Amino acid sequence: MPKRIRLDKAIVTANDRLAAELADTYDQAGVLVVNLMSSPGAGKTSLLEATARGLADRFRMACIDGDLATDRDAQRIQRAGMPCTQINTGGGCHLNGKQVRDALDAHRLDRLDILFIENVGNLVCPAVFDLGEHRRVVVSSTPEGDDKPIKYPVAFRMADGVVLNKMDMVDATDFSVEAFRGYVADIKPSLSIIEVSCKTGDGLVGWFQWVAEARDALSRKAAPGAE
Amino acid sequence: MPKRIRLDKAIVTANDRLAAELADTYDQAGVLVVNLMSSPGAGKTSLLEATARGLADRFRMACIDGDLATDRDAQRIQRAGMPCTQINTGGGCHLNGKQVRDALDAHRLDRLDILFIENVGNLVCPAVFDLGEHRRVVVSSTPEGDDKPIKYPVAFRMADGVVLNKMDMVDATDFSVEAFRGYVADIKPSLSIIEVSCKTGDGLVGWFQWVAEARDALSRKAAPGAE
Repeated sequence: MPKRIRLDKAIVTANDRLAAELADTYDQAGVLVVNLMSSPGAGKTSLLEATARGLADRFRMACIDGDLATDRDAQRIQRAGMPCTQINTGGGCHLNGKQVRDALDAHRLDRLDILFIENVGNLVCPAVFDLGEHRRVVVSSTPEGDDKPIKYPVAFRMADGVVLNKMDMVDATDFSVEAFRGYVADIKPSLSIIEVSCKTGDGLVGWFQWVAEARDALSRKAAPGAE
Repeated sequence: MPKRIRLDKAIVTANDRLAAELADTYDQAGVLVVNLMSSPGAGKTSLLEATARGLADRFRMACIDGDLATDRDAQRIQRAGMPCTQINTGGGCHLNGKQVRDALDAHRLDRLDILFIENVGNLVCPAVFDLGEHRRVVVSSTPEGDDKPIKYPVAFRMADGVVLNKMDMVDATDFSVEAFRGYVADIKPSLSIIEVSCKTGDGLVGWFQWVAEARDALSRKAAPGAE
């Protein structure tokens, strides 16, 4: 289907230019931007609710949330204490740079430490659309099965971290954590995997630490002499 | 993002022409074609494994399976007794008419009663690509959450049936079957929902009956005087 590939490449290239501008905007404001992607229902919103509560004392945070329809997720995140702007894509299968740039108007970046972007629930298309983020995270969940890394390799290859959610349900599935870790290592050996349960709270401290370290790395980059 | 919409419309229109040809091909061969779509890991392959075993005595069946990478799903379905052709889309987020047409070469349609198409795990893009099928089914699963119908409305609106899988896990989640049924009714009141557990086998008889009725309806259409 060469025609399709050609068209998509043009769209992705145009998006990449916007992403580079966004990356500059984030850096000038000194805000860490984390782009979260996953299958529908893997737990991105639950993770952000937990993050809103768990890191409220340490960081000033906000969120941009992408969904085909409804503002349910943004409402949930707001109720947890994190300001959140909802983008409805209509039928769109991913967030793009223009949507994120427009949504930034609702936030004062220079008053934020961390901006989260919750992408559309889709393990395919969001992976090829750079939003200028510093860190990209795939949220996977045990009921989806342990073979997702090799079946959706692009998303995992482009990620900086993996959160494996719903560990509380692992015994009710045939999910093998060892197999999952092996598949991730096959795709990208350096990728760290943080096992959590947003329901019970288990493991979330590891996620909070990962976020804090990413934030620290950005601060060191911005002020290398301050260490 | 008007450019994107224009490009996609052209692709969808070209695909629609191919889909009409495919629909003719299916009808001439007298084979029922069912297109299955879902989030990654909702259980399409498990449902097809169960179908291979549960309906082997009644129908001659085959499958075309779409994935970004690997032939794991096709192997599972073949092991369950249903001939299956794997399409690897590379990065492609859905199956299209051309891919399906090419894959048909591996099957003798006139010797089949039912052809299943397992689409790429993605609740967004496959919904707008007609493959000429007679019936379209969304497989949803309880760990994904009960709000998926309103968050991914296009997939549900375009479906002819919904299989709600992983009912064995419903008590381990905060999934409300009543809320799910209400959301589906909001999107498309006529849509039937079949609750199953591919793990325990519960409810599969309802799915087998749905498939058999769809097959019967096709036979009646092909030979209206034979009733």
